[in-house]
Amino acid sequence: MKLSPLFWPIQLKGNTIYILDETQLPQKLTYIKAKNYLQACAAIKQMKTRAVGQVLLVMYTFILSKRQNKNLAKVAAAINATRPTLSFKFLTDMVLGMEKSGAPLEKSILGFLEILKYKRIQQARQVAGLLKNGDVILTHCNVSGLMPLIAQFAKERGKKISFYVTETRPYLQGSRLTAWEIMRAGFEVTIITDNMVAYLLSLGKVTKVIVGADHLTLNGDIANKIGTYQIAVVAKYFKIPFFVICPPASKLKTGKEIKIEIRPGNELKVYQGLYLAPKEVKAYYPAFDVTPAKLITKHIYLSVS
Amino acid sequence: MKLSPLFWPIQLKGNTIYILDETQLPQKLTYIKAKNYLQACAAIKQMKTRAVGQVLLVMYTFILSKRQNKNLAKVAAAINATRPTLSFKFLTDMVLGMEKSGAPLEKSILGFLEILKYKRIQQARQVAGLLKNGDVILTHCNVSGLMPLIAQFAKERGKKISFYVTETRPYLQGSRLTAWEIMRAGFEVTIITDNMVAYLLSLGKVTKVIVGADHLTLNGDIANKIGTYQIAVVAKYFKIPFFVICPPASKLKTGKEIKIEIRPGNELKVYQGLYLAPKEVKAYYPAFDVTPAKLITKHIYLSVS
Repeated sequence: MKLSPLFWPIQLKGNTIYILDETQLPQKLTYIKAKNYLQACAAIKQMKTRAVGQVLLVMYTFILSKRQNKNLAKVAAAINATRPTLSFKFLTDMVLGMEKSGAPLEKSILGFLEILKYKRIQQARQVAGLLKNGDVILTHCNVSGLMPLIAQFAKERGKKISFYVTETRPYLQGSRLTAWEIMRAGFEVTIITDNMVAYLLSLGKVTKVIVGADHLTLNGDIANKIGTYQIAVVAKYFKIPFFVICPPASKLKTGKEIKIEIRPGNELKVYQGLYLAPKEVKAYYPAFDVTPAKLITKHIYLSVS
Repeated sequence: MKLSPLFWPIQLKGNTIYILDETQLPQKLTYIKAKNYLQACAAIKQMKTRAVGQVLLVMYTFILSKRQNKNLAKVAAAINATRPTLSFKFLTDMVLGMEKSGAPLEKSILGFLEILKYKRIQQARQVAGLLKNGDVILTHCNVSGLMPLIAQFAKERGKKISFYVTETRPYLQGSRLTAWEIMRAGFEVTIITDNMVAYLLSLGKVTKVIVGADHLTLNGDIANKIGTYQIAVVAKYFKIPFFVICPPASKLKTGKEIKIEIRPGNELKVYQGLYLAPKEVKAYYPAFDVTPAKLITKHIYLSVS
């Protein structure tokens, strides 16, 4: 089983954390080094990693800080403060709880990560089981290495699948990360702009939509990268199944309770120093949207066993 | 009445045609000079102008070529060959017909253009009449100077309106042209990426969608810039009225007969020399899509009188 660099983008080697710098992809596959919790927090603030990468980085930072005899409550506070609208508190509270209980911290965290890895692989296997030979999958943004793994599991069962990926403006995770990792794993992938979905679906070129989620609420609503909701509406119109690969559910009752992060409008107007719009124009950038459960054909949950 | 530079982007002064170079907007408002039909055809091929600009450029080129005693059939053939998937034949046949009939050509063409100008202004006035004070319009791509004119006519009737504009990937006509011309005319405008439409509409932030069209068929289907269809599907889902400002109808019966121009995938992957995706990845770029009449709340036709 070959894993995408995006499946496990953070590594701990000796007393150095290696962080895959996603902002450099696909041009360069490089890792940033963090030797203490302050450097790790800086990498989170600068959005060098995201999604599962952030979970791994937080956990490895606690291992490193424990070895360095740091005050873990202080480390937790620094992590919680990195991105005001993203909550790492669930993770940091869990680690502080482990520490308080007197469990061997490093071993406990490594155990947690092994289980997470296993469950994510199982999730990819489950999706592959739902696919048919010849399926054409449309996906959006990036599901941290799961798409090439799904294709690989499908192939092992004799099912050939291919992908369309929306580029996912403004950060272009679709073309820079997802298309890159699928192509690199040897599977067929084609990029489109975010506005081509309805036309593509009207041609009958897509058999299933599969996306990830950053947040799952108790009623089955999900929050994911901005644009997911629109694809779900369009998929419903064209009667294309819409699958969501989910994280564990939060304690929120419905998606209406999820706070949407509004990022600086400038991130829409400038790409790598190049202006894409008039400098003075107003821009609106909600980073996520909420897709209601009624538009989701199937949730693929993280196994609880 | 103040007109956007995009409302009439081509001018004939003496024996020189001045072509607004839309590829330089919004950074620079500059005009390219064409002194004969070969230079005019080169500007069309390089997509320096589009939509109404192409119609004006073709007509002024005939005036210039007539003054220069060129063979007009040869000029028509050169124009028809500029962009294989766009048809200028309707226009060039009309001019050759005028010439054949013995009508004074320059006067006839200038008359045609005056009528076109008048009808387009009437069309903007008609749209303004349909709006309410406080309306928030979502638009896509660029309707050659009509949006600021609509806002101006609405204002004269005491109605304040504001705009959201999709950036319109890959060419960014929405942010580079439409947002620029609306802002320049002193009206409120906010850009969003193409994938934010459903979320924006779900918030109740938009009261009407208004787009242009490149092609209208006899049954009311329209072809417009890629992404229009998707917005129409989403507007239907959220029950937001969807208006289309139409050109004269073609002779095609339905939108299914319209041939969609497929452009090089590279235009998705590279923006002003900057790679937005892996160099080797496949990309699919249909330049237009067809919105069926059933998704259109109201067609705003060019007056026939």
